[in-house]
Amino acid sequence: MQVLPATAAPAIAPLDLTISRVASRGVPSPYQTRVGYVDDGRRILLSADTAEVARWASAGIAPPAFELAGPRSLLFTDPREITCGIVTCGGLCPGLNNVIRSLVLTMSYGYGVGRVLGFRFGYSGMTPSSDTEPLLLTPETVEGIHKHGGTLLGSSRGPQDAGAMVDNLVARGVGVLFAIGGDGTLRGASLLQEEIARRNLPIPVIGIPKTIDNDINWVERSFGFTTAVDEAVRAIAAAHVEARGVRDGIGLVKLMGRHSGFIAAHATLASGEVNFCLIPEVPFRLEGERGLLKALEERLDRRNHAVIVVAEGAGQELASPSEAASSGKGAKDASGNVKLGDVGVYLRESLDAGFQKMGRAVTIKYIDPSYMIRSLPADAFDAELCLGLGQHAVHAAFAGRTSMMVGYWNGYFTHVPLSLAIEKRRQVGLTGALWQRVLVSTGQPGDLGAGPL
Amino acid sequence: MQVLPATAAPAIAPLDLTISRVASRGVPSPYQTRVGYVDDGRRILLSADTAEVARWASAGIAPPAFELAGPRSLLFTDPREITCGIVTCGGLCPGLNNVIRSLVLTMSYGYGVGRVLGFRFGYSGMTPSSDTEPLLLTPETVEGIHKHGGTLLGSSRGPQDAGAMVDNLVARGVGVLFAIGGDGTLRGASLLQEEIARRNLPIPVIGIPKTIDNDINWVERSFGFTTAVDEAVRAIAAAHVEARGVRDGIGLVKLMGRHSGFIAAHATLASGEVNFCLIPEVPFRLEGERGLLKALEERLDRRNHAVIVVAEGAGQELASPSEAASSGKGAKDASGNVKLGDVGVYLRESLDAGFQKMGRAVTIKYIDPSYMIRSLPADAFDAELCLGLGQHAVHAAFAGRTSMMVGYWNGYFTHVPLSLAIEKRRQVGLTGALWQRVLVSTGQPGDLGAGPL
Amino acid sequence: MQVLPATAAPAIAPLDLTISRVASRGVPSPYQTRVGYVDDGRRILLSADTAEVARWASAGIAPPAFELAGPRSLLFTDPREITCGIVTCGGLCPGLNNVIRSLVLTMSYGYGVGRVLGFRFGYSGMTPSSDTEPLLLTPETVEGIHKHGGTLLGSSRGPQDAGAMVDNLVARGVGVLFAIGGDGTLRGASLLQEEIARRNLPIPVIGIPKTIDNDINWVERSFGFTTAVDEAVRAIAAAHVEARGVRDGIGLVKLMGRHSGFIAAHATLASGEVNFCLIPEVPFRLEGERGLLKALEERLDRRNHAVIVVAEGAGQELASPSEAASSGKGAKDASGNVKLGDVGVYLRESLDAGFQKMGRAVTIKYIDPSYMIRSLPADAFDAELCLGLGQHAVHAAFAGRTSMMVGYWNGYFTHVPLSLAIEKRRQVGLTGALWQRVLVSTGQPGDLGAGPL
Amino acid sequence: MQVLPATAAPAIAPLDLTISRVASRGVPSPYQTRVGYVDDGRRILLSADTAEVARWASAGIAPPAFELAGPRSLLFTDPREITCGIVTCGGLCPGLNNVIRSLVLTMSYGYGVGRVLGFRFGYSGMTPSSDTEPLLLTPETVEGIHKHGGTLLGSSRGPQDAGAMVDNLVARGVGVLFAIGGDGTLRGASLLQEEIARRNLPIPVIGIPKTIDNDINWVERSFGFTTAVDEAVRAIAAAHVEARGVRDGIGLVKLMGRHSGFIAAHATLASGEVNFCLIPEVPFRLEGERGLLKALEERLDRRNHAVIVVAEGAGQELASPSEAASSGKGAKDASGNVKLGDVGVYLRESLDAGFQKMGRAVTIKYIDPSYMIRSLPADAFDAELCLGLGQHAVHAAFAGRTSMMVGYWNGYFTHVPLSLAIEKRRQVGLTGALWQRVLVSTGQPGDLGAGPL
Repeated sequence: MQVLPATAAPAIAPLDLTISRVASRGVPSPYQTRVGYVDDGRRILLSADTAEVARWASAGIAPPAFELAGPRSLLFTDPREITCGIVTCGGLCPGLNNVIRSLVLTMSYGYGVGRVLGFRFGYSGMTPSSDTEPLLLTPETVEGIHKHGGTLLGSSRGPQDAGAMVDNLVARGVGVLFAIGGDGTLRGASLLQEEIARRNLPIPVIGIPKTIDNDINWVERSFGFTTAVDEAVRAIAAAHVEARGVRDGIGLVKLMGRHSGFIAAHATLASGEVNFCLIPEVPFRLEGERGLLKALEERLDRRNHAVIVVAEGAGQELASPSEAASSGKGAKDASGNVKLGDVGVYLRESLDAGFQKMGRAVTIKYIDPSYMIRSLPADAFDAELCLGLGQHAVHAAFAGRTSMMVGYWNGYFTHVPLSLAIEKRRQVGLTGALWQRVLVSTGQPGDLGAGPL
Repeated sequence: MQVLPATAAPAIAPLDLTISRVASRGVPSPYQTRVGYVDDGRRILLSADTAEVARWASAGIAPPAFELAGPRSLLFTDPREITCGIVTCGGLCPGLNNVIRSLVLTMSYGYGVGRVLGFRFGYSGMTPSSDTEPLLLTPETVEGIHKHGGTLLGSSRGPQDAGAMVDNLVARGVGVLFAIGGDGTLRGASLLQEEIARRNLPIPVIGIPKTIDNDINWVERSFGFTTAVDEAVRAIAAAHVEARGVRDGIGLVKLMGRHSGFIAAHATLASGEVNFCLIPEVPFRLEGERGLLKALEERLDRRNHAVIVVAEGAGQELASPSEAASSGKGAKDASGNVKLGDVGVYLRESLDAGFQKMGRAVTIKYIDPSYMIRSLPADAFDAELCLGLGQHAVHAAFAGRTSMMVGYWNGYFTHVPLSLAIEKRRQVGLTGALWQRVLVSTGQPGDLGAGPL
Repeated sequence: MQVLPATAAPAIAPLDLTISRVASRGVPSPYQTRVGYVDDGRRILLSADTAEVARWASAGIAPPAFELAGPRSLLFTDPREITCGIVTCGGLCPGLNNVIRSLVLTMSYGYGVGRVLGFRFGYSGMTPSSDTEPLLLTPETVEGIHKHGGTLLGSSRGPQDAGAMVDNLVARGVGVLFAIGGDGTLRGASLLQEEIARRNLPIPVIGIPKTIDNDINWVERSFGFTTAVDEAVRAIAAAHVEARGVRDGIGLVKLMGRHSGFIAAHATLASGEVNFCLIPEVPFRLEGERGLLKALEERLDRRNHAVIVVAEGAGQELASPSEAASSGKGAKDASGNVKLGDVGVYLRESLDAGFQKMGRAVTIKYIDPSYMIRSLPADAFDAELCLGLGQHAVHAAFAGRTSMMVGYWNGYFTHVPLSLAIEKRRQVGLTGALWQRVLVSTGQPGDLGAGPL
Repeated sequence: MQVLPATAAPAIAPLDLTISRVASRGVPSPYQTRVGYVDDGRRILLSADTAEVARWASAGIAPPAFELAGPRSLLFTDPREITCGIVTCGGLCPGLNNVIRSLVLTMSYGYGVGRVLGFRFGYSGMTPSSDTEPLLLTPETVEGIHKHGGTLLGSSRGPQDAGAMVDNLVARGVGVLFAIGGDGTLRGASLLQEEIARRNLPIPVIGIPKTIDNDINWVERSFGFTTAVDEAVRAIAAAHVEARGVRDGIGLVKLMGRHSGFIAAHATLASGEVNFCLIPEVPFRLEGERGLLKALEERLDRRNHAVIVVAEGAGQELASPSEAASSGKGAKDASGNVKLGDVGVYLRESLDAGFQKMGRAVTIKYIDPSYMIRSLPADAFDAELCLGLGQHAVHAAFAGRTSMMVGYWNGYFTHVPLSLAIEKRRQVGLTGALWQRVLVSTGQPGDLGAGPL
């Protein structure tokens, strides 16, 4: 289910959805298809809402639309003559192995690519100085890997020198690169492509968006997300059982979501057992007449137990005030992500202290299921999504597209410019249907001490 | 993932998506919403494919679009004054209890409806002669029911006399009816509404489409489908293990899908372990140079094991030839569904016989997981879908819509005329992306002895 | 939970629990142990019931006791000099791969065995004429296999010529054989050992009992059983949901258990949702005042739904009367198992017919989860059991034991003579605690038309 | 699987296993049994090891044996005339609801008890000052509760005044009390019974041992343990995937086990993916030539990843040195349990710091699945165990036993004096088979810097 974006009313400004291409030799595709190749002109509307379409039209701008993904009849080069590379970066996410497998099978069986290399441990394994050799990936190597969580290739955080990586690609004769990863990875891919373009090399760089938080722009549902929400609901069920097991029991679950509360919001709706859902998009306060403590107290008065779900990026202004104060800006990890204060631990401790001050003995059970979620194998929905992403990434690469990622939008696989994908994050719209449903489902106040929304 | 409908090229004919309404008193809605009510004019395009949009435009017809679902500001009556009824019909499907719960919570908390009746055991419990009293449904009654499979209300197959049912609705003072069910149920709802209209009664009848096969027209993904595919993959995994456990082992899984192979096709893609996927839309033959037996033999020669997935409605021309021959048309069950020959048992026996004739001892393990799938509780994805369906059904009813069902299309909940929903079934398009991906994934021939596709 | 054997009162006759040994060179064990080796004289009482112990004592016979399993200080040969073989036979069972892995790791790391061969596809792969070469098994080969169901080696049914198999062992230089399988496999192992003894070869043959039915004598709980019962309960839950989904719904689940109803009985107790549990040990009738139909009718009158669990070997006198009549004895499969009539299909059809005759429309949902159960990976309990079985099989082999299997009894791993293991099957004692608890839990009559028990 | 206790060599001293009884009116039992009642003289040997039996015999002492549980022919009172009470105390454990259900069903259907009260929120709900009324428990109330985790009754920690509780029992006319809980609960039950005895009241107090750690003495396997180990293995699998996902990845899982490492040890064996298993029974050091850091470094050198499992009570001398130093004795929670330092957090931080000092960047992923484990519903194995425990507790109570708990030993349900049960905890024997198998399975050093074992 997706946020109704309609009411968000994006500013009317032309949106450039043009996809870059490498120089093409125009080789006929060896890919067999009974139903023909996709015409280059096919486009998928960004919005199926007629009001949106009309808004663009009235501004004299053609309604923005994505290039449709799929196999093309002419390829930029002969796939049987080149070596392709795959790299996985950032944190684990259910489905990574499915994407790797889909890429390898499509290249091997669909296009006859002879040699596929899997760089080890993220971008760090793409540097010439890396002491780990890439894996040679064949249909045999990837047999059954989609039944396991994690990534066959290993991963790492953080950027590497684009020049050195391109040197390495050239040295190894790699003619296509697939980069599977999130925001940072796609930024890295964009820099790589700039370096490649600078050198005038015909090496497509295709991103496959990986974000367990589902927060990459212009991707309706990213792989691993459905699996993650399902397991998150399991954690919430545990918190609910714990909360009901004692008087004034509070179950507290921290879920993934550094900047966007999609997992928390969807898991709240699916669970039906959450009373407070806290996400990064909605500031809250503990104290005060409209603060969380007060609302929680009222809930306990009514029902003797409560369940709170908090996204890891929520309440950062509360969870790490000293850090923010002392440094002006937060510390960062190797990927350049700001290190977050642990809002779960913060809530556990400050709620406990708050109720103690009121003289009320509550029992808080805190669950942090993140690593148990990230490491799962993909469920059926995500497995199929991964299969399609891998297939369409290969189609796009051999069609000579570059500096793009494969998206999924309004039921179609699409091509999305990297520039757009990394421009900003997707967030839960507070006036959209998703968040309104969360408020209805939890019965929580629309604001929690931090002003009306 | 959805079939790419684009290439299916529906005929260009105006499509009437107008929703019927009951007479309205124009009562202001008590439903609280921070973000306003949905304007009656909002529409969602049937296709986001610009080529489709252009095709309609060039024919001088406005591209068809669904009415957007959601709360309206004016209601046809005061919800606090009426009694509402819910009925569940047909076979079990994961999520039925979620929908019931969502309806009850939305009516009780959102609209202040004082009395909700749950008719027992399908339409049969709606007749005046029924000896089972309806359940009184309150937020307490439905607490936790969404964690269990099945339906709290019970179900049954088959139609009942519309006049008698309307008599009963009137006698019990029921002012709104929600009917959760498939094809047959929606037909029944349509007949009910005709009778209601004939009597000039202001009783909205709202359908909530339930089809584990995902074959109701104009519904992108029906509830229970994701859960079903996930469990189907588990059954396929078992068949794969069994097939590999012996020489020339064949794992055979029969999945749901009377007229449409969606579960079989999606489970095939998600599993990655299927070699032959047989669906109702694609006829096949056992014998002959291009028949299944020959293709299976070649697979066993190459790999010593094989996995076959067959939708229950596939190969009916093979599975029940005598029945078809003798009767001219097949026997029917209480719902009016043609009774199918058991293609799973047929395949197990005829493949075994076929290989024996070749002098090759194969071991066939046949798995029919249907009831284990249907009876599951909804997974997180379906749970959230059910929540939304229930909420939007209530919004639609009080907005005075009738003879419609709640759909889900291009990311929005929509209103769909019942007439359109029951006109024909959704089927796997053989030139669409879904089926092409199945062929690529299995490596099976595009036809199996039944002519080129 | 185990049957209380006490009241079964076995006849007082000496029980020979002596374990055969091959000629030993008395080589000091390379196996490292901080806590010393097991003394050859250690024994575990067959019964911890003091009444049993007294009964033996009063008959002047020492209470029977099993040889305790574990590493010995002196080995029959130097394990570093020999090749060992592993074979898996018969139907799949959760944990087969765990046992293979445990054998390989214990041999490789614990004893320094240099070469382990895995024969393919059961005894058939041990014949000189087999066209499949054995797999070379190393710690790398078996890494992670315990996470998958089935058997890495493949399996087959039926005996092979013992002489030919011994020829092959000799030709390949195999000095120890581990045979993992059920009744038939252990019989085969016993014949193999006789042929080996005839030739005066020092080749230990060690059985590891595999019986998903848990019906091998003198084994308290066989591997895979706990996993099987847990999944069986899932199938029963599905049947229960289906039965409650309609009026007069009957859920019917067929579970494994050719001669013994252990899975059916334990799953019934664990589920708490079963009304009738039918096992091979208890004959029943459909018709008559005390027959199943009548009892079922009363149950439906009271509660409107019912759940029946039937072991595949139950009611054979009903399910296949014609076969039994015509042949005097039933047909057999390749393993020499009598082919059973399908009691599940029989019950579905005859109950349906029976109620139709009474003019009562019941809805029967029949579930046969057998292959979905057999092919599962082992749960934690079974995984640990398999680890121990593999370790103790290796200890026993190098200690020079032969013609034995590893058992588990009163909390200890034991050595059990093959002769005893294959003498008769373990069955559910009708006067024991297990069956009494089933009767209490289901509320079913102690007999069902087939005379008092 | 159980520790081989043989080598532990308990001192030879008479062990009093006599069970206390309340004054009995000798009422014939209304409990129907086809196979007769259990004779009061039936006993189950504490050890089936013949060496143990001989040791006792040679000391002139009869080998100790437990009273066998089961229905007796004469009851201390007429169950149809009394009210019974149930209370659940301490932390959650899978199976609590199963035990409650089994107690209620056995009392209602088996003995005709008319009134069963469920005290809310542990012993605190048994005090006269409690503001929560007990629940009236009937077969309807407990229908289906065994499918949910947690406890229907709620729980709490800590003792209450025995005199006040007995006042309340008397005031409410409660004639039998069942207390489900761990060490502290059983101590409380023992004090209650002393007060009851002091007042000369014929009120049996029967304990049902609840310990997810499996550390109650004289209970082979406590309910919830199998379920817990299975889920623990899932957490370990997640840690393994995370560890392999990066270079020098370390997966760290904290499992339950305050004083005994049973869950950690069994989960380690079942998983096969653990490299270091740290339990309370085995002290360890971080630093030094034989410390954990050094051993971990070597593991990373060899394989680039490692998995550590730590029981919550392990390394307390390291995790909370300051607290121990400052207070002389540790702080305690409401149950009187010493509050433990968080060894998981301690290890995560100190290992990270230790490797940083070495200049090696490791990535540690820490998983604490405790609440997700405790709150699960019971698996089939535990469900059946709970059923038996509840049944035998009722049999024992009406047979007039008191101040005892129901045990499970050598395959039989037994009666165990509370005095013995609370005398000391069961721990992992370091010279027993369980720990030796852990050392073999992990390959970890027998000691980790804390002296030879």
